[in-house]
Amino acid sequence: MTSTINVAVLGARGRLGSAAVKAIEAADDMAVVATLGRGDDLSLIESSGATHVLDLTVPDQSEANVRHAVAAGKHTVVGTTGWDEQKRQRLQDLLKDQPEVGVMIAPNFAIGSVLASRFAAAAAQYFESVEIIELHHPNKVDAPSGTAIRTAEMISQARVEAGTPAAPDATETALDGARGADVESIPVHSVRLRGLTAHQEVLFGGAGETLTLRHDSFGHDSFMHGILLALRTVADRPGLAYGLDEYLDL
Amino acid sequence: MTSTINVAVLGARGRLGSAAVKAIEAADDMAVVATLGRGDDLSLIESSGATHVLDLTVPDQSEANVRHAVAAGKHTVVGTTGWDEQKRQRLQDLLKDQPEVGVMIAPNFAIGSVLASRFAAAAAQYFESVEIIELHHPNKVDAPSGTAIRTAEMISQARVEAGTPAAPDATETALDGARGADVESIPVHSVRLRGLTAHQEVLFGGAGETLTLRHDSFGHDSFMHGILLALRTVADRPGLAYGLDEYLDL
Amino acid sequence: MTSTINVAVLGARGRLGSAAVKAIEAADDMAVVATLGRGDDLSLIESSGATHVLDLTVPDQSEANVRHAVAAGKHTVVGTTGWDEQKRQRLQDLLKDQPEVGVMIAPNFAIGSVLASRFAAAAAQYFESVEIIELHHPNKVDAPSGTAIRTAEMISQARVEAGTPAAPDATETALDGARGADVESIPVHSVRLRGLTAHQEVLFGGAGETLTLRHDSFGHDSFMHGILLALRTVADRPGLAYGLDEYLDL
Amino acid sequence: MTSTINVAVLGARGRLGSAAVKAIEAADDMAVVATLGRGDDLSLIESSGATHVLDLTVPDQSEANVRHAVAAGKHTVVGTTGWDEQKRQRLQDLLKDQPEVGVMIAPNFAIGSVLASRFAAAAAQYFESVEIIELHHPNKVDAPSGTAIRTAEMISQARVEAGTPAAPDATETALDGARGADVESIPVHSVRLRGLTAHQEVLFGGAGETLTLRHDSFGHDSFMHGILLALRTVADRPGLAYGLDEYLDL
Repeated sequence: MTSTINVAVLGARGRLGSAAVKAIEAADDMAVVATLGRGDDLSLIESSGATHVLDLTVPDQSEANVRHAVAAGKHTVVGTTGWDEQKRQRLQDLLKDQPEVGVMIAPNFAIGSVLASRFAAAAAQYFESVEIIELHHPNKVDAPSGTAIRTAEMISQARVEAGTPAAPDATETALDGARGADVESIPVHSVRLRGLTAHQEVLFGGAGETLTLRHDSFGHDSFMHGILLALRTVADRPGLAYGLDEYLDL
Repeated sequence: MTSTINVAVLGARGRLGSAAVKAIEAADDMAVVATLGRGDDLSLIESSGATHVLDLTVPDQSEANVRHAVAAGKHTVVGTTGWDEQKRQRLQDLLKDQPEVGVMIAPNFAIGSVLASRFAAAAAQYFESVEIIELHHPNKVDAPSGTAIRTAEMISQARVEAGTPAAPDATETALDGARGADVESIPVHSVRLRGLTAHQEVLFGGAGETLTLRHDSFGHDSFMHGILLALRTVADRPGLAYGLDEYLDL
Repeated sequence: MTSTINVAVLGARGRLGSAAVKAIEAADDMAVVATLGRGDDLSLIESSGATHVLDLTVPDQSEANVRHAVAAGKHTVVGTTGWDEQKRQRLQDLLKDQPEVGVMIAPNFAIGSVLASRFAAAAAQYFESVEIIELHHPNKVDAPSGTAIRTAEMISQARVEAGTPAAPDATETALDGARGADVESIPVHSVRLRGLTAHQEVLFGGAGETLTLRHDSFGHDSFMHGILLALRTVADRPGLAYGLDEYLDL
Repeated sequence: MTSTINVAVLGARGRLGSAAVKAIEAADDMAVVATLGRGDDLSLIESSGATHVLDLTVPDQSEANVRHAVAAGKHTVVGTTGWDEQKRQRLQDLLKDQPEVGVMIAPNFAIGSVLASRFAAAAAQYFESVEIIELHHPNKVDAPSGTAIRTAEMISQARVEAGTPAAPDATETALDGARGADVESIPVHSVRLRGLTAHQEVLFGGAGETLTLRHDSFGHDSFMHGILLALRTVADRPGLAYGLDEYLDL
């Protein structure tokens, strides 16, 4: 890479944003040229000489931020949630006028988690049985986790498309809840345990063998690698990409 | 050990019984001197010169068999289920007349499983959180497994006795079943997967650490070690012992 | 699928062969039309009306068998080892005269194992650290397992191609063997434990996260699914395919 | 408990000490009445009204600190390393003059780790095979970890005492290091992986079953529970106790 990636970080004072600022500054091929918080003038993006924008703000600000960045010709990486299909469609319309600008919107920057989901979807049709166990700290308010639900949906869709039969299950008598939650026919079990952070196991089983895909996340550190990878790739990928796996060589 | 352990095996033609016959014959310090099936005359026990009896029959025969063996002065190891408190009490009464005879009745001869349960009960009071995951082949008709329910009961009892507070759980919204079955306040999750046999994990969690006790059973082979250990020990332990852990040095 | 797959099984009296015969006969869309053992006349392949041949023989017979089958226009699936590059090249030359014939030569028919290797290679470049733990029964004579060595080679190659730096390791003082075997810079640890069959874990680690790919094999049963999948696919894939993953939709 | 436990913390400004101060202050039944750092006058122990002393200093100060505390009649909990047999013997001599004072010296305050070691030693004689896998962050300079070596020694000693035969291992050809380090005949494998903290698995295997004891430590948090437990127990246990397991109900 011949030129430095100059990044304007939006949401730079949040927990994730300040970690990203540190990670970018620690990288040899990047520099932080502007850090914007709530209320700061977006024109700092242009005046700072940024080539790239990283948006780690909040759902109700992110669309305006990203549209401003794209209109200014900046390659943009987005870690803010809430980018539904409608917002993405509007952004794609805008990108028609900026054919050289790349945008990555990623619901999840943990590469291990993204890979585990992709592998789970790829394996889904080849095993009779599949179940998901997700394990989190006990302060989590929802069960199953959003990631587990999305993983189950991806697995279920792959099995439907391939015509995989339903998993065998001879259970006749069960205590309520023993067999987990049913997410599109995939059993999902949620463990809550002090000491844990965020973990997920997808278990596949066929005659004489099992395949287990496990991802352990120990905190926001795991997002930095994905954010840097996205910043290094986005300029070479004009147009809108949704999901970090679009930048992975799988 | 100076003298050979001569064993009469009752239920010798069943799957477990025939495996036990082979295991005993393969041991240097033991011999099978009689193999009895359904309908065979119990007097073969005495005429065979057996010093020990191994009962692997069915619940409605086991009590009569064991009482016959004890009355004849034989040390007896019992792997048949159905020995409720009433039957055990009647046997203890009979044993008063045979003060040198030992009897071991074991609901489970898999040493690894017995140890895992004991360790789980010992650890129970020292962690904020505890959950159980049991995993079996998909032909199993009940969920959770009997072993998981007993393990949960042992853990729960240990926590109640020690005054351990309830495990933390901030769950507010959950899909039905996601948080498992509630067995005396211990969440139990049942996985059914082609390729598996019988497996159990007890997960304990406290601030900054987790402890996992996992037992994997791959079939009846795992019972043989416990049966041989019981046969080698029972003559030195007059009276009735219930549960293989009474013979383990813990 | 409109017509039945009629299979001539070569090596049908071996352990793997006889299991395959049963599996094929149990499938709705297939039939075994000939079973050949050592010394049987290969012309039975043609006279039986077979559309497909399954070769599960021994290295010094397999090439002649497969060449006979291909020359006779039969789609052929090969589970025999020893198909080095030279043999495969000779077979490809022969296949030029049979442009509609498909051949699958698979060093490994366990789908879970094939998937785990592929996923490991795909993930290799995205993590700082990677190590392999393989666990087998204690009667195994070599360490590490051939599968572990091949997996390490695939991972190493992927990292070299992507320019991934060496994994961090600050070890200064170590007991001999503690850090495992070095297979092209990937540490490989071999566990031998009574009770186990054949198991492998690939562990990847980056800042704040780990990804674990585990495959458990409990015996030859696990090959049957892959063999059937290959028989169902081979007629649609003219030419030579090497490795079951070429038939998987990844 | 009727009266508050008033603790003087020595080494209170270190990383572990400051965490302990917070943990004590957060407990309902305890208070920190003095915090001493390097060079502070030990007479603060008496003048503060402390009933208990917690020593988390450095090896060359700890003995003098503890002897001062004991001479002053304070129950003392020690987390500093370096308490060899000679130092402990001298302390026991001193304790003869203070028959009501309790002292706990613990090489490890992580309850999960202490339990895992105890369980491993208890299980050691009952399985044909046993191996240890320890997994740590890649900045660790020694391999295997001290905990793994001590665990192997405890297991080995238990097997020797029980007359357990050597574990079966048919390995004939092995790459250097594949079978791990040999610690008193127990194979120990050391994994170094970015993302991990400190983890250990003890794997036991017998015919048809395996038992796995796994401890995961995610940092110093895990010591606080053990420190508080020791502070709550030490006044009821006059004399010197070495190792937290002496206070556990096993």
